[in-house]
Amino acid sequence: MSPNRQALLLSSSNCHGYSMLEFAKQEICSLLQSINVTNLIFIPYAQMDYDKYTAKMKEVIEPWGFKVTGLHTYPDPVDAIDSSNAIFIGGGNTFLLLKTLYDNNLVKLINTKVNSGNLVYIGSSAGTNVATKSIHTTNDMPIIFPPTFEAIGIVPFNINPHYIDVLESATHKGETRDQRIAEYMEMSHAKPVLGLREGSILHIEGNKLTLKGIAGAVLFKAHEKKIEYPVGSDVSFLIFS
Amino acid sequence: MSPNRQALLLSSSNCHGYSMLEFAKQEICSLLQSINVTNLIFIPYAQMDYDKYTAKMKEVIEPWGFKVTGLHTYPDPVDAIDSSNAIFIGGGNTFLLLKTLYDNNLVKLINTKVNSGNLVYIGSSAGTNVATKSIHTTNDMPIIFPPTFEAIGIVPFNINPHYIDVLESATHKGETRDQRIAEYMEMSHAKPVLGLREGSILHIEGNKLTLKGIAGAVLFKAHEKKIEYPVGSDVSFLIFS
Ligand SMILES: [Ca+2]
Ligand SMILES: [Ca+2]
Repeated sequence: MSPNRQALLLSSSNCHGYSMLEFAKQEICSLLQSINVTNLIFIPYAQMDYDKYTAKMKEVIEPWGFKVTGLHTYPDPVDAIDSSNAIFIGGGNTFLLLKTLYDNNLVKLINTKVNSGNLVYIGSSAGTNVATKSIHTTNDMPIIFPPTFEAIGIVPFNINPHYIDVLESATHKGETRDQRIAEYMEMSHAKPVLGLREGSILHIEGNKLTLKGIAGAVLFKAHEKKIEYPVGSDVSFLIFS
Repeated sequence: MSPNRQALLLSSSNCHGYSMLEFAKQEICSLLQSINVTNLIFIPYAQMDYDKYTAKMKEVIEPWGFKVTGLHTYPDPVDAIDSSNAIFIGGGNTFLLLKTLYDNNLVKLINTKVNSGNLVYIGSSAGTNVATKSIHTTNDMPIIFPPTFEAIGIVPFNINPHYIDVLESATHKGETRDQRIAEYMEMSHAKPVLGLREGSILHIEGNKLTLKGIAGAVLFKAHEKKIEYPVGSDVSFLIFS
């Protein structure tokens, strides 16, 4: 693991009271500026309309001073990632995203480049799920069958993005988010789950993990009560999950 | 397909204002009585504690006049299903349930016995998801990796149990249920999705499909607006999905 590796895992792109990605603007800009990124490759695989999704991201991020190019516009995605120094994987459907990353032989490549400090990783929502050990704690519907739930594995634990601990409605009998996560924690293969509230960002710098953004996170571990971590918390201990 | 096949697919076991399974009591009792069922095999695979889950079901269903036996208490699950005439598959986690059904070689067997009219199928929530074409529209977290998302396939379309069309909260930016289903409808392999509101039951009798219970359903088809179907609706056309 290179001490130079850098990643920002966002709970979501949208957050109540902010325009798209606004809550994360400062973190994204200072990270990209620190390594002199001029061209950010956007991976739109979590949605179906790559052009439309990329256009939306360009509209938000290019005014910040970085050129945004959709990975689908390059002749070969592996070559494109190989010669790039920063990627942004957007949200949508986690199953569709993971399957498409595997279909394009990008999972191992991204892991290796990020962990060796040669590729900055920014992910949001589904793009955050696929950065972790596995997609076991996505909120998305399993709309397409991926070859495995194992993912890029930049961190050895799981993340639940868009974490929220309220009921869908007082009279609805579906499971709450905490009940869903508890079902996972009963599995023998379960890892700790970091629930990122909307507006929360996990910053990874080498083996240092810090909570940034404007909202905190909640940690679930097997046989333990959940623990709240406010913005600014050092959660580097999770590297040893 | 035998004209004698019979199944009841419940949206959930719990429904606001009713005790467990109470809203479905009349349908379950008259179906089981009509074929003189004395012993109902309960499949508790969607949860981890089989004994506890089976005990809970016994407590509800045995007072109605049927003996309930957990499938896990038989020496061989295939033999047990082979010599049984009625099963109830309970809810919990759909991925765990489907994987365990495959691990025990029960998927094909249940399909064949139900469709030939030799096994009554009652399912609730996850037990309803696995009765359909595939589990693509479960609400559950993918806590364990099944060999496929294809399921028992008693019906050739998908069901979304616990269907609800309200937001988790007014300020939360996660997807609504309708948005999640819309993501599935964009897939080339997508089938129509019948959203069963809590308290809704799909009754299958040969190729006749009728909505029963105390709440209706909502049908999603690709490139079409969703359509509401009240209790009592004949939805047999879905057999040709
Ligand atoms: Ca999503
Ligand atoms: Ca469930």
